[in-house]
Amino acid sequence: MEASVTRAGGPAALRFAGLPELERLRTLDAEPAERAAAFADACRLNVLYMIARAGSGHIGTSFSSIDVVSWLHLEVLRDGDRYFSSKGHDAPGLYAVLIALGRLPFEKLDRLRRLGGLPGHPDVLSTPEVVTNTGSLGMGISKAKGFVLADRLSGRPGGRVFVLTGDGELQEGQFWESLASAANRSLHEITVIVDHNKIQSDIWVTDVSDLGDLRAKVEAFGWAVGRCDGNDPRSLGPALGELEGRAADRPKLLIADTLKGAGVSFMEPHGLPPRGDELYAYHSGAPSPEEYERAVDEIEERLAARLEALGQPPLRLEEAEAPARSAPASPQKLVPAYGETLADLAEAEPRLVALDADLMLDTGLIPFRTRHPERFVECGIAEQDMVSQAAAMALAGLLPAVHSFGCFLSTRPNEQIYNQCTEGTKVIYAGSLVGLVPGGPGHSHQSVRDISALGAMPGMSLLEPASEHEARLCIEWAVREAPGSVYIRLVSVPWELGFEPPRAERLVPGRGEVVRHGGDAVMVGAGPVVLSQAYAAAGRLAERGLECTVVALPWLRDVDGPWLAELAAGGPIFCLDNHYAAGGQGDAVAAALAAHDSAPVAAVHRLAVDRVPECGTNDEVLRAHGLDAEGIAARVGAAMPSRV
Amino acid sequence: MEASVTRAGGPAALRFAGLPELERLRTLDAEPAERAAAFADACRLNVLYMIARAGSGHIGTSFSSIDVVSWLHLEVLRDGDRYFSSKGHDAPGLYAVLIALGRLPFEKLDRLRRLGGLPGHPDVLSTPEVVTNTGSLGMGISKAKGFVLADRLSGRPGGRVFVLTGDGELQEGQFWESLASAANRSLHEITVIVDHNKIQSDIWVTDVSDLGDLRAKVEAFGWAVGRCDGNDPRSLGPALGELEGRAADRPKLLIADTLKGAGVSFMEPHGLPPRGDELYAYHSGAPSPEEYERAVDEIEERLAARLEALGQPPLRLEEAEAPARSAPASPQKLVPAYGETLADLAEAEPRLVALDADLMLDTGLIPFRTRHPERFVECGIAEQDMVSQAAAMALAGLLPAVHSFGCFLSTRPNEQIYNQCTEGTKVIYAGSLVGLVPGGPGHSHQSVRDISALGAMPGMSLLEPASEHEARLCIEWAVREAPGSVYIRLVSVPWELGFEPPRAERLVPGRGEVVRHGGDAVMVGAGPVVLSQAYAAAGRLAERGLECTVVALPWLRDVDGPWLAELAAGGPIFCLDNHYAAGGQGDAVAAALAAHDSAPVAAVHRLAVDRVPECGTNDEVLRAHGLDAEGIAARVGAAMPSRV
Repeated sequence: MEASVTRAGGPAALRFAGLPELERLRTLDAEPAERAAAFADACRLNVLYMIARAGSGHIGTSFSSIDVVSWLHLEVLRDGDRYFSSKGHDAPGLYAVLIALGRLPFEKLDRLRRLGGLPGHPDVLSTPEVVTNTGSLGMGISKAKGFVLADRLSGRPGGRVFVLTGDGELQEGQFWESLASAANRSLHEITVIVDHNKIQSDIWVTDVSDLGDLRAKVEAFGWAVGRCDGNDPRSLGPALGELEGRAADRPKLLIADTLKGAGVSFMEPHGLPPRGDELYAYHSGAPSPEEYERAVDEIEERLAARLEALGQPPLRLEEAEAPARSAPASPQKLVPAYGETLADLAEAEPRLVALDADLMLDTGLIPFRTRHPERFVECGIAEQDMVSQAAAMALAGLLPAVHSFGCFLSTRPNEQIYNQCTEGTKVIYAGSLVGLVPGGPGHSHQSVRDISALGAMPGMSLLEPASEHEARLCIEWAVREAPGSVYIRLVSVPWELGFEPPRAERLVPGRGEVVRHGGDAVMVGAGPVVLSQAYAAAGRLAERGLECTVVALPWLRDVDGPWLAELAAGGPIFCLDNHYAAGGQGDAVAAALAAHDSAPVAAVHRLAVDRVPECGTNDEVLRAHGLDAEGIAARVGAAMPSRV
Repeated sequence: MEASVTRAGGPAALRFAGLPELERLRTLDAEPAERAAAFADACRLNVLYMIARAGSGHIGTSFSSIDVVSWLHLEVLRDGDRYFSSKGHDAPGLYAVLIALGRLPFEKLDRLRRLGGLPGHPDVLSTPEVVTNTGSLGMGISKAKGFVLADRLSGRPGGRVFVLTGDGELQEGQFWESLASAANRSLHEITVIVDHNKIQSDIWVTDVSDLGDLRAKVEAFGWAVGRCDGNDPRSLGPALGELEGRAADRPKLLIADTLKGAGVSFMEPHGLPPRGDELYAYHSGAPSPEEYERAVDEIEERLAARLEALGQPPLRLEEAEAPARSAPASPQKLVPAYGETLADLAEAEPRLVALDADLMLDTGLIPFRTRHPERFVECGIAEQDMVSQAAAMALAGLLPAVHSFGCFLSTRPNEQIYNQCTEGTKVIYAGSLVGLVPGGPGHSHQSVRDISALGAMPGMSLLEPASEHEARLCIEWAVREAPGSVYIRLVSVPWELGFEPPRAERLVPGRGEVVRHGGDAVMVGAGPVVLSQAYAAAGRLAERGLECTVVALPWLRDVDGPWLAELAAGGPIFCLDNHYAAGGQGDAVAAALAAHDSAPVAAVHRLAVDRVPECGTNDEVLRAHGLDAEGIAARVGAAMPSRV
């Protein structure tokens, strides 16, 4: 899971361990456990470097798991074995290890979350060393089973599969769903290691949805279970060996007790109170310059002591300039606007309850939790369970608002949402982190399929606001006026519109606001990202003599065709979708205009995401998909050659 | 889960227990256990009556659970309590009990699976006594939690929730996902009763995906667990009481050992061999006339003995004529054609593997399993796990074909399918039971949202064949030619086309076959249901002077716009969707024609499913949604008033 926070500023110079030094640690003449600990610390330094340079990334989980990842790669894995992380957001840790082993090009160290670089979550197509795409939680053991069955079927038996999971991840039903057949088929090739750092996203697992007696649970499913200190190779190595010896014929799971942020004292959760309002600060996002310096100093010092004890000189770090980063001057922040309004509305609407799937910070729910704690239901990373609970609450007379990232909310509980809609009740679904940006987390988190996945829910309205004002209108309409369920699609990145946001007092179903007038063509879209680019594109096209109307249309499914056709006045319409073309707003526009009751328009063009989204900076990603101002202007101009 | 088999013929006369007799049993002066057993047997007779009359329905699970349902309703439930079945397909049993209690109108006994009657799976909107919509498996405990939390929040604490589940259903991840917070929040109001009849769909649970030590598993999640004979009220009653006393502060689960088809000796699985090719015969579908007679006689005889022991006269049954039923003369049977071809293709394609989610009979996989047992992977009712396993198999070089009903396959593992598609591999998804018909099972099983839910999967082709020949072409194209993943959408009901199916030698991407020529308008659709109705509608319209072209277009997403525009020759196009309008084939047609590279057409009209599907006979349902020949002709005629 992924927040999009980047701390302000950035360190002036960043330090990293170069290949020769990494090679020295990898081949250190020492006990394997000593060597692995030193190697892992060097990789920690490079994780910090990558994340500080990228401006975002998951430090906490990369650090909690990096001793496990290092040990496996140095001492355990052999040809034919596979290793992957099911949680996936520990990718910087994996990349650092693979770079240190020479299995990824060293120059990729500078390319975390950059176009053509190392994606925020693992991706097989861009990174051949990656075994499978993860980042959507809970799929790891199922995939391990598929690999083992394929190997057995293909006459290549014997390869082992090591899967790292998170602990919050174990709240996902698929984890438990996947256990049974592994035991029934005696898939002894599989070893699962749980990175049990006890914090999921920002608070303690026990406070979100306590795992209970994890050993007893997994053993009851017929697996062999071990436990160790996952940040200490002297504990980890023997525990893996013991488990292998004890259960040669069964799938195995090792609970590795770890610390989130392990290896940097102030990133470890010492003193983080249970059930408090304080959040763990290093789940995602880059460290501040001061934090970066303190963290590097601490690791460097400990590593020097390790090396000195082995009669070795300290690690020599190399330096590189930190990239400059700028923040938008007056961005629209939709998620906080949504969240504050939801909490406000709950004052007058006692039926309103808010359900969260371990993303309360990222979905704007902190104000609601603070002001209405008794009506805040933390469900953990269990979206199916969350939605079905909400469905029953709605049947019992409440008005539930259900939250997660759009990529998860529209897909994982897709059948549960349909089931709720068939009951004729009203539930509000708020999906944040939608669209191409932030471009850093990669395609598991870039929600560009949610309109399609939810588009045919009977009675559901789909809305995407472009501004803070519109975000407030959307949730107000959903709570007060909507006749059925509503999906509110929220861009999470603070975003500069480049034009004055419309100030309509209320939403008119099917219609939007004209933010720019022009007589040649109409550009229509929803949300701040495509509208800011469309507005800028219209400016460029005007310089070339082509005047475009730009329409902010928050309705993603219900489109007032005659109203839009009148705006187009016979000219072409360009639909801009922060989403795949299929099933996006453009399809709804085309269908509304194709019916016989609209005036004819010249054509409906869909400018949309045309392939699995690229990972990179926001600018890189929009440009790569032709959805930046320049790309839009070029495509609109090309479609109207006689006019430019 | 639902097969659509109706045994040929039907009994000449059907027998049922009328209200006075039901009332006599309900108030029988006897021990509660004796009374409940007699009451349940009378309800069994009415279940048989309803299913024989409807021509389909789930006898096996209605009979295994009816002693539990009777006991709860006679002796346990009080005001403020809720009862519902999570599996849902035992609805005939629930209806029989509610009718016997006078809580549903008695005349509904004649209306199982009929328009305005009692749906094949529970539905809150049409049946007020129903607590929540089920039929999609695994949601029960989540919903129970939602009810309890809502009651607590609303200041109505104390109401208990009793949830019946299947045992195959426990393979669904959501079941396990839902357990944790019930224990953590001490939701003692919840009692789950597992109808442990040990057969799921057609074979033993142990052969599909063994549940292992169920008691240990559930206890490890912090629940109190009991066990009893679920077909014997003398065991069931005390077991429920014991559990209540032992665990007043915890959620409870009672494993009720039952027999599928309990109460009719030849419907119980005595002698059904493990891991054999023999299937349990009474999961769904109506009994033959002979089976019906034998079953009624056996229950009647046993009940008479029960009553005699209590000094009571035997049950007096009433009679009603059995409805006549006709079968199509030369129907297209798409699923067997698909299944045989898949097995054939596997001869030459060693990479082909078939994965099933406990529906091998209904998805046409018996030939594959028989001919390629080593490449047949039974995953159980665990669609997420199935798809992620297939994804890994594809990465490892295999070509997996994944099977379930369309309503489940497109939704439950929706995120897992997307994850696979982002890996750039090829997996074939075959969804059967799609569209409005069979109309009997109700909306949980009427897959009219699958095109939308899968429509934006990157690189995926979506296909729906209209004939056996086209079904063969689709799977051949998917295996041999498709560049990426494919979804094949299969109508399960044997269906009469009414026209000679086209015999093209191969599929041409984006294009279809003209099955009727006419110069005034074009009707386009996929699959046998809408095409048969369109063809018949074209005949009616021709009588009124309007000549329509009818196009069988198997491509649901990729449409060759210029080709279709040329066929339309400037006239209107009517898109017929066995699916909701949003995200259906009509949207793809509209979008393809709206782009600038097609000749203009007068209009694109979408004739599609406009609301949550009705439950009823196939004819009733098509008519109710205006998708029968008459409805189509009327709507096409109305859109072209100048021509008719």
